[in-house]
Amino acid sequence: MKITGSTRVYFVIADPIDQVRAPELFNLVFRLYGIDAVVVPLNVKPEDFDATLRALFKAPNVDGVFLSIPHKPAALTVADRCSLLAQVAGAVNAVRRAPDGALEGDLFDGLGFVKALERAHIPYAGKRVLLIGAGGAASAIAAALAACGSAEIAVFDPAGDKAAQLAARIAEAFPVETRAAASNDPAGYDLVVNASPLGMKQGDPAPFDVARLDAGAAVFDVLMKNQPTPLLRSARARALKAEPGFEMLIQQAPLYLRFFGLETAAAGIENDASALRDMIYPKELLDTLQAS
Amino acid sequence: MKITGSTRVYFVIADPIDQVRAPELFNLVFRLYGIDAVVVPLNVKPEDFDATLRALFKAPNVDGVFLSIPHKPAALTVADRCSLLAQVAGAVNAVRRAPDGALEGDLFDGLGFVKALERAHIPYAGKRVLLIGAGGAASAIAAALAACGSAEIAVFDPAGDKAAQLAARIAEAFPVETRAAASNDPAGYDLVVNASPLGMKQGDPAPFDVARLDAGAAVFDVLMKNQPTPLLRSARARALKAEPGFEMLIQQAPLYLRFFGLETAAAGIENDASALRDMIYPKELLDTLQAS
Repeated sequence: MKITGSTRVYFVIADPIDQVRAPELFNLVFRLYGIDAVVVPLNVKPEDFDATLRALFKAPNVDGVFLSIPHKPAALTVADRCSLLAQVAGAVNAVRRAPDGALEGDLFDGLGFVKALERAHIPYAGKRVLLIGAGGAASAIAAALAACGSAEIAVFDPAGDKAAQLAARIAEAFPVETRAAASNDPAGYDLVVNASPLGMKQGDPAPFDVARLDAGAAVFDVLMKNQPTPLLRSARARALKAEPGFEMLIQQAPLYLRFFGLETAAAGIENDASALRDMIYPKELLDTLQAS
Repeated sequence: MKITGSTRVYFVIADPIDQVRAPELFNLVFRLYGIDAVVVPLNVKPEDFDATLRALFKAPNVDGVFLSIPHKPAALTVADRCSLLAQVAGAVNAVRRAPDGALEGDLFDGLGFVKALERAHIPYAGKRVLLIGAGGAASAIAAALAACGSAEIAVFDPAGDKAAQLAARIAEAFPVETRAAASNDPAGYDLVVNASPLGMKQGDPAPFDVARLDAGAAVFDVLMKNQPTPLLRSARARALKAEPGFEMLIQQAPLYLRFFGLETAAAGIENDASALRDMIYPKELLDTLQAS
């Protein structure tokens, strides 16, 4: 990668910033496809977010901004227009400058999840889904599943009103049966998704009781750390399909690229994302996945 | 160069942006010295300069900003503290965040010029200097020569009051004989510097009459384009020392690096800048310089 005065600039904005992966991921894509552009990390505090985002988009050589924690909800109010998925989930992953100068926001976390299911041959259309968690990841996933034809979406969160609020937002926007689940019991669901932080820390309780999963049910754990997570291990021990969160990240890449008008790279990565997987997947996880 | 979430960020701000060289130059230095940092071009319009500069420095992973045309004078009013050279020349090359959070500005154009003279063995201390031009480059050069002990600085500019104003600013700050020159006649000077745009366009008149230079006088032409310039050619035809502007750029690099606290890289580049010269000097110019 060679940066010159004519290189187009993208930012990923987060606080803290060290953990963001977008620079590695997309600078690799730019290199692979000969795109003269760079993704740069910018550590923006919540109180500076509005002014900074506006200032960056005043610069004509800035083509887009990726948003990470904690700015995804705030971007919804700064952007002039947002996609339905972004509005329903209450979060924005990326902002671009439209030809008329307006700032447009969209959300890809949920669609990335759906595409990750497809890659793992886990069906979701017409299926009953239990989501553990009602935060940012769960909201994005619920909205995307609703948009993509799941039959039933139940949301469990220990903070019961959060689950009810998310279910209400989904039900308002999409014709899908959706509700707050009374418990985290996975019995009776085709797909159970851990979209909570449970499993990030050693000693966390299981997000739900794997022994209660239906035969033939699938599990998806959005966590990226400590792979393979205890949840994935125990689901696989029951010979159930169980997928880690990394593929969500991989499957989002073409969506971002297309959003930013980089169609050739988007199609290329859709066709072959092996370079991204080599970068993102932990080596031990790849070994486990191949072994299982 | 690999950019991750922990990479430190520098910007070069200019309008237009395509011509800036700082990303190539300093990203090469970062690579050579294993510094996990990146210089990114940002095209900022004059009306957005103040808000953008302040927003960038709010980001804790931003360590510095390089300023290029047209923002060098404006930075003087945004920075909280500026060096004497910056104040006298009315321009700032670089801004950093001080430990107390204040924004500090400094100017290296003139010191880079002085160091370029040293490298070419052109004496300036105690010498009589004629500067052609009274704009940004001339102001920086005049201030640095005054600070570094030139005996006499005459400034010629067709807009006579600009030259008088620059001479007055220099005389106020430094104990050096300085004045607006009545003409561009180079006779009687030890060093004559073209710090005007004359020579950038084909058909430009010569900045001064080379035939009138004293025997033993030296010439420095700050222009970077169309090398070697007609001025350099005709001075060399008289067997006079005549240097192009590129070395100013090279010699500034360690000054910027030290300003940003990157001492090892600064010392390294002071010791061996061959990689930067290979990047910055046009091949044809290197050939000419070696031949002459």
